[in-house]
Amino acid sequence: MADSWEKSIAFFLAEDLGRGDATTRAVVCGGEKGRAALIAREAMIVCGLDVVRAVFAFLDPDVEWKPRFDEGGRVSAGDRLAELAGRAAPILGAERVALNLLQRMCGIATATRRYVDAVEGTGCRILDTRKTAPGLRVFDKRAVAAGGGKNHRFGLDDGILIKDNHLAVAGSACEAVARAKRSASALLKIEVEVENERQLQEALASGADALLIDNRTPAELAALVAVARRMRPEVPLEASGGIHLENVRAYAETGVDFVSIGALTHSVVAADISLEMDLA
Amino acid sequence: MADSWEKSIAFFLAEDLGRGDATTRAVVCGGEKGRAALIAREAMIVCGLDVVRAVFAFLDPDVEWKPRFDEGGRVSAGDRLAELAGRAAPILGAERVALNLLQRMCGIATATRRYVDAVEGTGCRILDTRKTAPGLRVFDKRAVAAGGGKNHRFGLDDGILIKDNHLAVAGSACEAVARAKRSASALLKIEVEVENERQLQEALASGADALLIDNRTPAELAALVAVARRMRPEVPLEASGGIHLENVRAYAETGVDFVSIGALTHSVVAADISLEMDLA
Amino acid sequence: MADSWEKSIAFFLAEDLGRGDATTRAVVCGGEKGRAALIAREAMIVCGLDVVRAVFAFLDPDVEWKPRFDEGGRVSAGDRLAELAGRAAPILGAERVALNLLQRMCGIATATRRYVDAVEGTGCRILDTRKTAPGLRVFDKRAVAAGGGKNHRFGLDDGILIKDNHLAVAGSACEAVARAKRSASALLKIEVEVENERQLQEALASGADALLIDNRTPAELAALVAVARRMRPEVPLEASGGIHLENVRAYAETGVDFVSIGALTHSVVAADISLEMDLA
Amino acid sequence: MADSWEKSIAFFLAEDLGRGDATTRAVVCGGEKGRAALIAREAMIVCGLDVVRAVFAFLDPDVEWKPRFDEGGRVSAGDRLAELAGRAAPILGAERVALNLLQRMCGIATATRRYVDAVEGTGCRILDTRKTAPGLRVFDKRAVAAGGGKNHRFGLDDGILIKDNHLAVAGSACEAVARAKRSASALLKIEVEVENERQLQEALASGADALLIDNRTPAELAALVAVARRMRPEVPLEASGGIHLENVRAYAETGVDFVSIGALTHSVVAADISLEMDLA
Amino acid sequence: MADSWEKSIAFFLAEDLGRGDATTRAVVCGGEKGRAALIAREAMIVCGLDVVRAVFAFLDPDVEWKPRFDEGGRVSAGDRLAELAGRAAPILGAERVALNLLQRMCGIATATRRYVDAVEGTGCRILDTRKTAPGLRVFDKRAVAAGGGKNHRFGLDDGILIKDNHLAVAGSACEAVARAKRSASALLKIEVEVENERQLQEALASGADALLIDNRTPAELAALVAVARRMRPEVPLEASGGIHLENVRAYAETGVDFVSIGALTHSVVAADISLEMDLA
Amino acid sequence: MADSWEKSIAFFLAEDLGRGDATTRAVVCGGEKGRAALIAREAMIVCGLDVVRAVFAFLDPDVEWKPRFDEGGRVSAGDRLAELAGRAAPILGAERVALNLLQRMCGIATATRRYVDAVEGTGCRILDTRKTAPGLRVFDKRAVAAGGGKNHRFGLDDGILIKDNHLAVAGSACEAVARAKRSASALLKIEVEVENERQLQEALASGADALLIDNRTPAELAALVAVARRMRPEVPLEASGGIHLENVRAYAETGVDFVSIGALTHSVVAADISLEMDLA
Repeated sequence: MADSWEKSIAFFLAEDLGRGDATTRAVVCGGEKGRAALIAREAMIVCGLDVVRAVFAFLDPDVEWKPRFDEGGRVSAGDRLAELAGRAAPILGAERVALNLLQRMCGIATATRRYVDAVEGTGCRILDTRKTAPGLRVFDKRAVAAGGGKNHRFGLDDGILIKDNHLAVAGSACEAVARAKRSASALLKIEVEVENERQLQEALASGADALLIDNRTPAELAALVAVARRMRPEVPLEASGGIHLENVRAYAETGVDFVSIGALTHSVVAADISLEMDLA
Repeated sequence: MADSWEKSIAFFLAEDLGRGDATTRAVVCGGEKGRAALIAREAMIVCGLDVVRAVFAFLDPDVEWKPRFDEGGRVSAGDRLAELAGRAAPILGAERVALNLLQRMCGIATATRRYVDAVEGTGCRILDTRKTAPGLRVFDKRAVAAGGGKNHRFGLDDGILIKDNHLAVAGSACEAVARAKRSASALLKIEVEVENERQLQEALASGADALLIDNRTPAELAALVAVARRMRPEVPLEASGGIHLENVRAYAETGVDFVSIGALTHSVVAADISLEMDLA
Repeated sequence: MADSWEKSIAFFLAEDLGRGDATTRAVVCGGEKGRAALIAREAMIVCGLDVVRAVFAFLDPDVEWKPRFDEGGRVSAGDRLAELAGRAAPILGAERVALNLLQRMCGIATATRRYVDAVEGTGCRILDTRKTAPGLRVFDKRAVAAGGGKNHRFGLDDGILIKDNHLAVAGSACEAVARAKRSASALLKIEVEVENERQLQEALASGADALLIDNRTPAELAALVAVARRMRPEVPLEASGGIHLENVRAYAETGVDFVSIGALTHSVVAADISLEMDLA
Repeated sequence: MADSWEKSIAFFLAEDLGRGDATTRAVVCGGEKGRAALIAREAMIVCGLDVVRAVFAFLDPDVEWKPRFDEGGRVSAGDRLAELAGRAAPILGAERVALNLLQRMCGIATATRRYVDAVEGTGCRILDTRKTAPGLRVFDKRAVAAGGGKNHRFGLDDGILIKDNHLAVAGSACEAVARAKRSASALLKIEVEVENERQLQEALASGADALLIDNRTPAELAALVAVARRMRPEVPLEASGGIHLENVRAYAETGVDFVSIGALTHSVVAADISLEMDLA
Repeated sequence: MADSWEKSIAFFLAEDLGRGDATTRAVVCGGEKGRAALIAREAMIVCGLDVVRAVFAFLDPDVEWKPRFDEGGRVSAGDRLAELAGRAAPILGAERVALNLLQRMCGIATATRRYVDAVEGTGCRILDTRKTAPGLRVFDKRAVAAGGGKNHRFGLDDGILIKDNHLAVAGSACEAVARAKRSASALLKIEVEVENERQLQEALASGADALLIDNRTPAELAALVAVARRMRPEVPLEASGGIHLENVRAYAETGVDFVSIGALTHSVVAADISLEMDLA
Repeated sequence: MADSWEKSIAFFLAEDLGRGDATTRAVVCGGEKGRAALIAREAMIVCGLDVVRAVFAFLDPDVEWKPRFDEGGRVSAGDRLAELAGRAAPILGAERVALNLLQRMCGIATATRRYVDAVEGTGCRILDTRKTAPGLRVFDKRAVAAGGGKNHRFGLDDGILIKDNHLAVAGSACEAVARAKRSASALLKIEVEVENERQLQEALASGADALLIDNRTPAELAALVAVARRMRPEVPLEASGGIHLENVRAYAETGVDFVSIGALTHSVVAADISLEMDLA
């Protein structure tokens, strides 16, 4: 919901503004109007223009806003992503937060799109992870979707994912899945992380709804996929660990349903975007 | 103050936990104890172990915590950054937020250290910018300091920086600086962004306390530095724009006091760290 | 996590205390100590003693607390549920909020247990709904679990449940399920509400993960269960609508996996509990 | 003030929505419009339609809203309480919270009206208590007023009510009332709970502004009323304890000014109301 | 409750600290310990030492604190109000907020005591008003009590006070009081502001619980008091308007029960207190 | 930014309203409209009318508002500062908070103007301090500016001011300034408090950006000013301690750039303003 944006945006602006924009307060007399454009300095996938609009509107609800691209659209260097007009002071006060968000979201969407293009035709989908910048998950995950990826869990509460550290505590996958089936909320799926055939068979036998196969080479992965398809063909399979743009297609071609990529959100390269202003 | 950490950490944990850690709640019986270690998977500069401790302590104030390195220390692949012990459930619940923060902070500190090493001996210092991930500025800036960099403004309120967009509104630098000297709070310095000799001379003449020289080649920059030193030798000079690890020393050798690098915080590569757990 | 309790408890106490407990402030001198007991005035299932402890501890972290029963335990009229001791003023200030919460939770747990007992041996489990008192869901749902019931969704985000109003907008169940499979987060199950055989067959064919069969008599329900088991025996079936303590066993004996009962939480009868105090 | 509604409604919606309405997000494309009606499934007293409007308006300020009954109005089974129209997604997202609130408020108003009708002509008024669902007091108390009841204290700060537990600490009623007269805020009345003639006389003699007579039979109560009226006829008298719909008139006819009924708010039966939707 | 202090103190410290105490962070190495004393520079009534302790404890829960005077005690110039010891950094960070609060509270208590002394023996009590500094009411009112005054309403919700502006809307006092008796919460008294005999008689006749007689000379006031005592001797009378230290005794001697003084809190002279520090 | 007003105003109104304006709720039927005027009862400098507007608008966004004076304007007794019209209930509910704020701000602006007038022609400017009422700094400081004063730091984070208590911990001014230059944020000036010539020389030699000379007579101050101007003529000098309206000109004529006056904000005399209302 837009509401969670509101709170985040208020928090981000408060972080940057503190007691207020001392420079603008000192050098802008008050009523001056300005026009500005957000300009792409390189090719990218657009994401988050509506978020950026909300940032500017937070400081000035009357700001005029003309987006030039749709969410997920492809943009070339030099393109104007959006134009805005209104009182200069709030535009200047919101500029940095707006750019910081937009550059990150476009950066994520652009990177995701490269992975999605790399696996095109295999039927495999690119998943994100919870390795997002703290406080920015909703924005990071939206950018993955804008780039054509699919979202994995938004948090620890909208899915059960039993990993190695859980098994270190709970004992067997069998026992862990049984406990989860007994007490977890009724509509959550149970996914189990496995690294080898024995674990995979145990997890499938115990009734897991999905499997995460971690840290395998494409060849090892293909063998495990074959085993899983024989046992329970309807169970979705996800691969993770050591997968990057150069080898992602090899992983996708093993027949897994999903490949998850932490770097999409933990190691973001900001897209190059600037805001240019002149008096209205 | 630690207080601002508290609120941020609460926010980050809430983002990840939502209604709670469904997996741990389902598969951990309650009282199990565990031991865990944070392990560096590559060489890095350490930053933020006390923040990570606060993350774990937020969910379990009784967690035991043994850090193995000081802030800013150099770490090798395989080193244990810290060890912790306590109830397994809150450790599992906090793991992802802790890692997301730590990997980002160590990533920033490590990158900063590379820049600082590159300009060693020139007397020039590496500055950060406000191009941080929204909501993470205090952590991003601490990581820069841990890597040997110096912090520029923490927000729009602890310094006056008159940039091109301000001049588009206020008219001349002369007028903008005069306004700032009249009305700004008494202990804030006034820095002016300039791109050429005419702007530089105007800014110095109008009484600016510092200059930011943007988007010049090292040679152009050196010439401007010479002009500035002749006019007002006590005014600190900062360079920015198009500076990266390969050319930063050339910029530093122009005699500027500071070089500011946006990529330190807007394009972070997460340091590779994992948490490994076993039963206590 | 305990954290969400904290906020709720703070909110509940603030609601009752306003500017403070005027009576206690006026008539209690300050340091008087007191002992108190929470006493059951009728037979009940206990639930929420740890929540109540947190209420008292919120106003006085040093309060002594001795619970006498475990969560879910059966209690007779006259039993002491817990004893507490400490400064009299905060105990008096927290008394009403503590009782209001405890009486509601015990009331829900007691009613749930009656339903669970009524279906004993059928294999059918009693589910709750989202028909909880606004702001009290986490407490209401915990009470259902304490009474032996199982929790359905905690909110609109931890499961997909496509109901008649959604179909009025989305068109066919087939289309709605397809959309959900494409874009929903990876680990959420998709349940579809149906009222007749045609809808049931369409929902099963479209790949729903679970079915909610609403407003059928036990005989009609049994017929639909038979159809569903033939088509996709692994799909869990839930019945709802017009089910009460007198007819719940008939519904359970149709072979459905779950029966959900809104009245468990929307029409609660408070358990009769009082707090009695004397000077320490 | 409406403001406190806003915060509560935001809290209630956040509780239900969590990270957002996963079902609607998945199956509704975005712009679809819908019409809906809130329909009474049984006879009831209406209360809280403006609250419900605020719930829907919180998610969509542009929702159209046509209430069909006034606060406190009598409604028959099948009546449409209100109609609404607007974007389908926010209506679906707010539906459950709206119904949970409305069904509770109408349930309380309906029950209160039964008590008010039962004492009609006696001059005795029905009072509520602080035995409300935590977090819902403002709504619960409004529903009592809509049903014709009068509100007792909204919290511990808008009145002094000295009960048995206070006397256990403060000693005599005489001393407690004296303390309250000395230090309490200037415009708060002082009510004292009594159970027998000795206590009643002491409380009246010490200057109490009102009396609460607890746990007496109608005959015992009548005798105490006579004593009180002789001593200080202007002091209002309230009866409580063991009073229900069947015996409330007998209590009212003793001549007390008020009868207070905890069950009005601690044991609510939700009124049966549904929301039906179709495409606009 | 202490809780409302907590929030206010957090707010006050956040106001002063912003992103943190830049000076202390820069010049204090971290672990230095210090001792400090709060020293009265003039004679005063002490108030709020426990509040000040909470301010210091907010930044350092381990600070040692030794108060030297009780609430309401008389202090001479040069007296040490309290001593504290602990880490120097948080003491320096909290110093200004602590002094700002303490100087205000002691200033109010000292001024109140002068008024209380001036009316000694008349039986008349000094009341405060709602003319407090926004956000500081709980502290301002506590200081009045520490100086021997009595508190009037804490807000618009703990008493009914019908003033001229209300009568301009509601029409007659008679109608206004009747409405208040019908719908206001059960334990709130109804006070009516009057300026002449006609208004006074109307207010008493309509059943007001207390009267506020505004803007009369002592002689006029005495005449009105006589009328009121004849009509309803039990009704408390309060005088306000144009009353200061020089004429307050004349007002008190008219026989009114209360005199209220807005200047106690709207025009405060800070008591002169300093904090002196040395290394431990 | 207006945003920080919003939160403060919400807090101030909540403090006064509590559970709501019981009087207005009881005696105003709901829809009555009213007109009101804010009237100056004495001569004053106006400050904060836009803040007051925001207070009324918080409770009723539709209130009509006509300010009659500009910020900083001079007003005579009897002048109408502003007129407003709208629903009577929210105007009555906001009246006290509005007046409390306005009377304080006008009181501060009026006092400041007296100081500013007293030093006219000397070139010396009047500074405020951090001795503001907790929670009201932004309003107190605005009032100083409206009266012609200049603002010193808004908090501990927008300037470095090394005072005696810091030196007690850090040792020499030399060491303290060196530390500050090394680690403080790039655009903060460093001011040092001195009391004698030795301290002054040390502070100037160590590179302080400004000096605060405390507790000197005008003659002593003049001598120190002469020393400072000889050493580093560009360093701004501020005097404080024991300065009041009668001697401020003597201090100003010593040649200092600034005189700071704590009493401007720690000992405010409220300007006399009333709100008068009649039915529209």
